[in-house]
Amino acid sequence: MYRDTNLRSVTKGISWRFVATTTTIIIVYIFFGRLDLAIAAGVIETVLKVGLYWAHERAWFKIKWGRKKIEPFNLWFTGLPLSGKTTLANRVYEELSNFEIPLERIDSKDIRDLIPGIGYTREDRNRHMHRIGHLIKTLQNNSVSTVASFVSPYTESRKAIREMVKNNIVVYVKAELETCKKRDINGKYEKALRGEYENFTGVNDVYEEPQHAEIIIDTDKLSIDESVEVIIKYIKSNYIK
Amino acid sequence: MYRDTNLRSVTKGISWRFVATTTTIIIVYIFFGRLDLAIAAGVIETVLKVGLYWAHERAWFKIKWGRKKIEPFNLWFTGLPLSGKTTLANRVYEELSNFEIPLERIDSKDIRDLIPGIGYTREDRNRHMHRIGHLIKTLQNNSVSTVASFVSPYTESRKAIREMVKNNIVVYVKAELETCKKRDINGKYEKALRGEYENFTGVNDVYEEPQHAEIIIDTDKLSIDESVEVIIKYIKSNYIK
Repeated sequence: MYRDTNLRSVTKGISWRFVATTTTIIIVYIFFGRLDLAIAAGVIETVLKVGLYWAHERAWFKIKWGRKKIEPFNLWFTGLPLSGKTTLANRVYEELSNFEIPLERIDSKDIRDLIPGIGYTREDRNRHMHRIGHLIKTLQNNSVSTVASFVSPYTESRKAIREMVKNNIVVYVKAELETCKKRDINGKYEKALRGEYENFTGVNDVYEEPQHAEIIIDTDKLSIDESVEVIIKYIKSNYIK
Repeated sequence: MYRDTNLRSVTKGISWRFVATTTTIIIVYIFFGRLDLAIAAGVIETVLKVGLYWAHERAWFKIKWGRKKIEPFNLWFTGLPLSGKTTLANRVYEELSNFEIPLERIDSKDIRDLIPGIGYTREDRNRHMHRIGHLIKTLQNNSVSTVASFVSPYTESRKAIREMVKNNIVVYVKAELETCKKRDINGKYEKALRGEYENFTGVNDVYEEPQHAEIIIDTDKLSIDESVEVIIKYIKSNYIK
C-alpha cells in the first residue's frame, strides 16, 4: 500500500495551477480586454491557490468516503507435476503486475523449500492446503490478490480452499501424462516410476480431476501466450474494472 | 487497499471549485471593481474547471511518482501462558486501527483452532513459528503490519522470526508465574501441574526470557491502559509519522 508524499501533493498542485491559471487569464481577458490586468490577476491567483490546493488535497486524505476497497481474488493453478502450472502462473503474475492491484505469488515449491518437511501423504497435503488457505485468506483481508500454483490433487483440499477464500478461480492446467513426462528434464517421473518417490501424483498417487474449474487450459492445444491471454481476459472481465 | 471512486473525484472537484471560484471572484472584483462581471467570470470558470479538475485528478492516478510505500512493522507479544499477551495485543490492535495503516491481528489460539494438530514439542513449536514468520513476511511484502501474540518460549524461534521479518518489535509481557496462575480461570495451570498437559510452558516446559526485547511490559506493575500507552507511543515515534 502506498500513501501520497507531501512533495507529490505540492507538485500535483503546481501542475493543476498551470492548467487552471491559464484558463482564468483567458476568461478575464475575454471579459475585460486587458491582458496586463488579466495576467496580474492570474499571478495573484497562482500564489494564493497553490497553497489552498495543497491544504485542500491534504484535507481530503482524512476523508474516507468515496474510497472503494479493492476486491481480491485467488487464481488457483492445479494440475499434474510438470503440467506447466508454475510457468503459466509466473507469466500470469507478470501480466497482472501491470495493473494497480496488490498481488502475491504463492508457489508450492517455494513454500516447501522455505518450510521443509511438509510431506506428501494425503493427510500431509490436506493440512498443507489448509495452511495455504489461511495464508490466502489473511492476504485477502488486506485486499491482496493471489496467484497460487499447487499440484493439489485431491478434490477435498481444493474444496477446502474454495470454502476458505473468496473469488476463487480454479485454473485446471490439463496435460496428458505423456506430455508431462516429456517436459520432465530432471527425470522426476522416471524416479517415481522406479519407486524412488512415494505418493508421486500421476504415478503412485491419484490426481482427482477438478469438476468445477472456472478455467481449463489444455496445454496440449494452447500455447503459453494463448493460455495467459485466456486467464487475463477472465480476470479483466470479472475482477479488474 | 482502497482506490478512489469516480464519484469521490467529482465531489472533491466540486468542493475545490467552491474554494477556488470564490477566490477568483474576489481577485477580479478587487482589480476591476465590477462585481457583476467578476461573478460572470467566476461562473464560466466554474463550469470549465470542474471538468478540468476531474480530468487532472484521474490523470494523476496513473502517475506513480510521489507515492511512498507504507513501511510495515511486526509487534510480537511473547510471555508465559495467561501473562496477558492476548488481552494486551487486542487492545493495542484496536488502538492502531485508528491510524490509516493496513493491519492484521495474528493470535496463537486462533491459528491453532483453525489448523489443528500443530503440537507443543520444541520441534513442533519451532516449525510453527517458521510458518508464522512466513505469513508475516508475506503480509509485509504487501505493506501489512502485524500484531502477533504467541507464547514463543524459545530464543531460537524468536530469533528465526526476527530474521524473517522486518521492523520486528518484541514486546515481552512479563508476569510472575503466581500472577499467571491467579488469572487462570480455566484451570490450565492446575491441569498442567497434575500432569494432564505435556510441554506446558512455565510448568513442564521452559520459558527462555527474551534478552533483546524492544519493549518490556511488567504486568505486575503496569495497568493495561498504561501498557497500551507505552506500546502505542513506541510505534508512533518509530513507525507512524
